[in-house]
Amino acid sequence: MPNNRVDVLVASYLEPALVEKIARCDSRVRVTYAPELLPRPRWRSDHVGVPRELTVAEHDRWTSMLQTAEVMFDFDWRHPDRTLEQSPKLEWVQATSAGVGETIERFGLSYAPLTVTTASGVHADPLAEFALAGILHFTRGLPHLINDRQNRTWRKQSAPELAGSHAVILGPGKIGTRTAELLRHFSVTSTGVARNPRTDSAPFDIMTTIDQFPEHLPHADILVVSCALTGSTRGLIGRRQLDALPHGAVVVNLGRGPIIDEDALADGLSSGRLGGAVLDVTSTEPLDDDSPLWTAQNVILSPHSAANVPSENAKIVDLFIANLERHLSGDRLINEFDFDAGY
Amino acid sequence: MPNNRVDVLVASYLEPALVEKIARCDSRVRVTYAPELLPRPRWRSDHVGVPRELTVAEHDRWTSMLQTAEVMFDFDWRHPDRTLEQSPKLEWVQATSAGVGETIERFGLSYAPLTVTTASGVHADPLAEFALAGILHFTRGLPHLINDRQNRTWRKQSAPELAGSHAVILGPGKIGTRTAELLRHFSVTSTGVARNPRTDSAPFDIMTTIDQFPEHLPHADILVVSCALTGSTRGLIGRRQLDALPHGAVVVNLGRGPIIDEDALADGLSSGRLGGAVLDVTSTEPLDDDSPLWTAQNVILSPHSAANVPSENAKIVDLFIANLERHLSGDRLINEFDFDAGY
Repeated sequence: MPNNRVDVLVASYLEPALVEKIARCDSRVRVTYAPELLPRPRWRSDHVGVPRELTVAEHDRWTSMLQTAEVMFDFDWRHPDRTLEQSPKLEWVQATSAGVGETIERFGLSYAPLTVTTASGVHADPLAEFALAGILHFTRGLPHLINDRQNRTWRKQSAPELAGSHAVILGPGKIGTRTAELLRHFSVTSTGVARNPRTDSAPFDIMTTIDQFPEHLPHADILVVSCALTGSTRGLIGRRQLDALPHGAVVVNLGRGPIIDEDALADGLSSGRLGGAVLDVTSTEPLDDDSPLWTAQNVILSPHSAANVPSENAKIVDLFIANLERHLSGDRLINEFDFDAGY
Repeated sequence: MPNNRVDVLVASYLEPALVEKIARCDSRVRVTYAPELLPRPRWRSDHVGVPRELTVAEHDRWTSMLQTAEVMFDFDWRHPDRTLEQSPKLEWVQATSAGVGETIERFGLSYAPLTVTTASGVHADPLAEFALAGILHFTRGLPHLINDRQNRTWRKQSAPELAGSHAVILGPGKIGTRTAELLRHFSVTSTGVARNPRTDSAPFDIMTTIDQFPEHLPHADILVVSCALTGSTRGLIGRRQLDALPHGAVVVNLGRGPIIDEDALADGLSSGRLGGAVLDVTSTEPLDDDSPLWTAQNVILSPHSAANVPSENAKIVDLFIANLERHLSGDRLINEFDFDAGY
């Protein structure tokens, strides 16, 4: 049913021009935004930020804003676990992250009478760039070049090229697809692994299922994990799967940490059997002090911030506005979180 | 005039299968190959190698091979400066490198009655991969990630993305063109700088001349040098040109060292004004012990070996065979060195 008016609460810091853009997108949209009640961002497009101490008056203001909200841009930063009681009119939350399965569970919002849309797609470009940065780093022997310069050593040698290698990509969503696309431009072929493989495989050369993917591991010069964390992906890349990779393989994790057995990964790196690991996520974040990944050889470790690029907010706002228009027309939203699938 | 037979001397180490491939390409081809008289390669597709001490008998064998050669695959490794006297029948040398201007001058072969063909094109893929590896390394903040892990620091931050930036590429030959192509796939636009700009600019967005290129420097987030060393490119990127680049710009040199003023480059890096340098070539090779590039911040230094990939020989041999067929038919060869242009 089309909506006549909609109360939108922007619950995460946004640049004023972007708030303005939301407010002006449709005359039926009424935006509430009080950045002085929100955590302070530590960098552009930070959606966690440094929490604020609110005075009683401020607390009351924030509470009443939550109460009238029908649509929220991001979850409440204070008590997201009380979302349903605090915001009785709430119909829809636009999340600022692509992987919200864990978040929704932690907030007790599984199967809540609420639409949640993810920011899936927004992070595909910067994450695929990060994947390529790391893959090229190890494939083209940059660690050796960096070492040699530190030791003032001029040592000519041959390094493998990226062209002609093969990648196995777990999770052919937007991030995995964009990574496969970029790899293809470097003449790297790829196998996409999906729960339900598409018929049209492009940009992947082959599509396969999770059941069959172990057969492809011996040919995976590059293994990219870009799937959601669900019951069936948790621990999917264990010691046996890592051991099946060819010598010198590079492992990339853009998905979620618990999908890979990190002890087995660190062993493979430290023994020199694996060529490198490119990790934007780890099983615990921040990474445990005693994790072997701090000292394993050939790890590029990003603190789950490879998608944090200055342009992120602008892209999420564009997605949100497209969704607001659909919401007002009563159409199905883009990126609706599927409670059954878990992503 | 078509040739009836041709004596080919392979003067650089090649894998036996590749020599066989040359020998079988045409019944008129007679190949001489004596790897025991050639420098020992230090890695696959090494065309310098470790020189050998030849006995008097071996010396005589090699001398007589040079004497009958009509075509050579690579220059003589012992006395290339005596090429014309040693090989009176020599008509054509297929070089194994793309930039042979300096070599030809050093060998005293400028304007010699000899066709020299370069390996231009063979190194485009691995060099463009190396350029992207280095550009992504600095743009995506890998040095910070590497440092933070070494210091066991978990520090989320935002890094710029590569998408949306602009590159200026000096020398839109095969290496520069392939680099522009790859950058374009990352949504990076580019200006190609040529002596005689082509009408069809693709994959560059704009083409300009050497005279006009300084105007483009303030927009060059990335400056790629991929031109030959000639009278007009020596010292072309001096302090003034480097100072014109925007803050954080990344400078890539795939051409020849003397094109860039390295002292000015090191100053820009150490002050933090430039974001990084990605160098496959330096003004002296090996790099002088007292060069500031050994210790300047943010340098990826490759000892002129970024094009040394295992597949290199196979590609040069394919080019050589295509040229042999043209030579036998009396056609113009691919990649003929132009003594006037210097490349």
